[in-house]
Amino acid sequence: MAHLLSTSCTLKISSGYKPYSRLTQDSVASFPTSFTFQTSKSPFKSLVLPGERSGGGNCNIVQATTISSSREASKNPSSVFDQSSTEPSKSQKVMVIGGDGYCGWATALHLSKKGYEVAIVDSLVRRLFDHQLGIDSLTPIASIHNRIRCWKSLTGKNIELYIGDICDFEFLSESFKSFEPDAVVHFGEQRSAPYSMIDRSRAVFTQHNNVIGTLNVLFAIKEFREQCHLVKLGTMGEYGTPNIDIEEGYITITHNGRTDTLPYPKQASSFYHLSKVHDSHNIAFTCKAWGIRATDLNQGVVYGVKTEETDLHEELSNRLDYDGVFGTALNRFCVQAAVGHPLTVYGKGGQTRGYLDIRDTVQCVELAIANPAKPGEFRVFNQFTEQFSVNELAALVTKAGNKLGIEVKTTSVPNPRVEAEEHYYNAKHTKLIELGLKPHLLSDSLLDSLLNFAIKYKDRVDTKQIMPSVSWKKIGVKPKTVAA
Amino acid sequence: MAHLLSTSCTLKISSGYKPYSRLTQDSVASFPTSFTFQTSKSPFKSLVLPGERSGGGNCNIVQATTISSSREASKNPSSVFDQSSTEPSKSQKVMVIGGDGYCGWATALHLSKKGYEVAIVDSLVRRLFDHQLGIDSLTPIASIHNRIRCWKSLTGKNIELYIGDICDFEFLSESFKSFEPDAVVHFGEQRSAPYSMIDRSRAVFTQHNNVIGTLNVLFAIKEFREQCHLVKLGTMGEYGTPNIDIEEGYITITHNGRTDTLPYPKQASSFYHLSKVHDSHNIAFTCKAWGIRATDLNQGVVYGVKTEETDLHEELSNRLDYDGVFGTALNRFCVQAAVGHPLTVYGKGGQTRGYLDIRDTVQCVELAIANPAKPGEFRVFNQFTEQFSVNELAALVTKAGNKLGIEVKTTSVPNPRVEAEEHYYNAKHTKLIELGLKPHLLSDSLLDSLLNFAIKYKDRVDTKQIMPSVSWKKIGVKPKTVAA
Repeated sequence: MAHLLSTSCTLKISSGYKPYSRLTQDSVASFPTSFTFQTSKSPFKSLVLPGERSGGGNCNIVQATTISSSREASKNPSSVFDQSSTEPSKSQKVMVIGGDGYCGWATALHLSKKGYEVAIVDSLVRRLFDHQLGIDSLTPIASIHNRIRCWKSLTGKNIELYIGDICDFEFLSESFKSFEPDAVVHFGEQRSAPYSMIDRSRAVFTQHNNVIGTLNVLFAIKEFREQCHLVKLGTMGEYGTPNIDIEEGYITITHNGRTDTLPYPKQASSFYHLSKVHDSHNIAFTCKAWGIRATDLNQGVVYGVKTEETDLHEELSNRLDYDGVFGTALNRFCVQAAVGHPLTVYGKGGQTRGYLDIRDTVQCVELAIANPAKPGEFRVFNQFTEQFSVNELAALVTKAGNKLGIEVKTTSVPNPRVEAEEHYYNAKHTKLIELGLKPHLLSDSLLDSLLNFAIKYKDRVDTKQIMPSVSWKKIGVKPKTVAA
Repeated sequence: MAHLLSTSCTLKISSGYKPYSRLTQDSVASFPTSFTFQTSKSPFKSLVLPGERSGGGNCNIVQATTISSSREASKNPSSVFDQSSTEPSKSQKVMVIGGDGYCGWATALHLSKKGYEVAIVDSLVRRLFDHQLGIDSLTPIASIHNRIRCWKSLTGKNIELYIGDICDFEFLSESFKSFEPDAVVHFGEQRSAPYSMIDRSRAVFTQHNNVIGTLNVLFAIKEFREQCHLVKLGTMGEYGTPNIDIEEGYITITHNGRTDTLPYPKQASSFYHLSKVHDSHNIAFTCKAWGIRATDLNQGVVYGVKTEETDLHEELSNRLDYDGVFGTALNRFCVQAAVGHPLTVYGKGGQTRGYLDIRDTVQCVELAIANPAKPGEFRVFNQFTEQFSVNELAALVTKAGNKLGIEVKTTSVPNPRVEAEEHYYNAKHTKLIELGLKPHLLSDSLLDSLLNFAIKYKDRVDTKQIMPSVSWKKIGVKPKTVAA
């Protein structure tokens, strides 16, 4: 059954007159036809964003005073940003699948700011996982409806919303036919390795959800938008930790006197990482067989929370996960330091991976869209900016904590994963740089700000969620539930 | 919902006395506890195998005259075979998933003959595909119940039967707990590339069915039979057609002065072949993470139909597919020649693949079981004996046809697949030879017998099923049905 919920965003302006007045055809042109709102020519006084939590949720009532530039924004929305970069010459339509998630939300806003017409497609199941596992984002996050309304009120830019499951092809088809994307950014997958290792049913869910969802996206592109560019989020974890340099997607091999360039061998080590390997193979095939144009962004571990766009208003805040299931290394360490919990290094801590600032995630995705793959091309970029071992990250957070007067301890916990804890690691990552990526490297000031951010919200931390609760070796077939 | 149908095989012997007499404990020991039957000490006169088609199906009434060695067999079942090879010293229990299919049925019988205790696990969905697509095996095949009853009557050997879907973990768990396999041979997948390319829903079905079914098998082994050896049927099609030699599963790569042995890069070219690539990655991970012992048999194209066991009786006949969806190159050509249809070469016909006789399939699987992988080992064997291009096969069948006085024509049809039609191909296949495989190479006499077999059944050929009906490029999202 399809659940197609195209958003209808209502801006109710309390002192307005001429309610329900229609915009002229010209001014309406850039908005999707399903979008309706009430507007006013009166001075901007306060902005009330009704939503499902309108009974008293503090995210739903946005005082005009907290939006310093709202008045100007309503006249000239783009003025709230430094418009140094070039907007796309012709307005491109970008569908962001998984646009309510950590990377997806930041990306949707960034693309909207850059002048792309954006639609978010999301089942919101990530929020359900929080409920089911009894975990929560460090930062309070607004509903997707309020997020989008807030963005609209601040910038004048509309983001369309399609709520549904891409594994439901009927829903996905309707979204495609309605929005007609020129590019699809696909974050819409279960993205936690520990989640995929909780129990059999989560392992099966992860592979089914990710593989079938991506198959459906490929079929939707083939059927409805043949020229649409697929920008798919992969992971550096697809490669594992080989004892040779990691290339970007392909490796040239000379063997018994003959040479060929082949897909780089994959050695993923969780059912989640494996699902991305499966996706990569499926996508590569459809590029060859159907002429799909695709970019696979093998992303490293993302850290940080703020982007220029999410920082505009609390209602736009991004989620920050610190728990043992969805929290990733650096973000988790900052939260641990903020609450005086020892940094939890798994095993020896020599595990080395590629990392990047979330501000670079959004930049990379935009670069991929602005420089699309050719028809039939399956292009792979390694999307990270620096390599760190877990021990190096722990040392950096310890140093940053000390600067803020926090004593930071580190504890080694038994590694819940099955992975090499000391290994060679050298992964190439030049292709996005060549396209123009200006990396935000991990600096003292970034770490200070991330740590201060964690301290700001430290009363929201549930320390019971910090330790790893999932074991790669102990995963069983019985459904695991979290006790109250 | 689980559908656990453990068979209860009844042999009704018409002139018998002492019905319901129990066997002594000793003679019962080698049979599973769920097996019950009626027996008799009277002279063997006729064997009636009641089944779902007992109203008049010609497979259900087996005349004693057609079972020349039945009387002896009932006393000393193994005497119907040349027992030159060694039986397993301790009776090993082997679960054959997909044991009602083309390779699965032949393998189940071969293992049973070799002294293994065999259980077949099958959803019988392959028979449903025939109904849905309006196709049929060249050979009439008995129901699985009658096949097993016939085998029992001829050899005294019991095969347990569990009818259900391995994607249903509840069913699979019960099968594992009931049978307690020492080895699992996993043929239980949708195995046709064209089938996976019919429409979106078949593509999704194939990947879901194959990937999730295999995940469930891995979880069942981990949970219930940790030491159980998984023998998984992969395909040579996982490798594609690289411009370098194909190794058996792994390749040693020296790159930028460093060396590692990594999984051989995969370039599959249908959703079916891709599903096997996904399986391989998933299995490799569980060997590493959980210590699963697994052998991946990357099988070439299988030809032939008879094995020593299936040839014992018509009721044991194997299926032979010649249609455009399930038929594979050499078998299809023989049927085409038998009915005077031109051999359908796709495109240029330079497509080269590994091939093997079905008698070698059963031999290879037994060798893998008899020489199991070590705990944690993910072992890959390339299971084929010879390489041929499609044009070479067409020439061989033409020559064989001419010998029998059949004029054989060849026609090039537009290639429904996306594949290289002229390419380098050199795949290693020494590991099974090292374990003792004695190949049945494709010979004139084999081709003669296959061709004669096809001629014998040529009145059953539906020539409308011969031409390819599925296009790699034209696959769409609308469910495809076959008109009457």
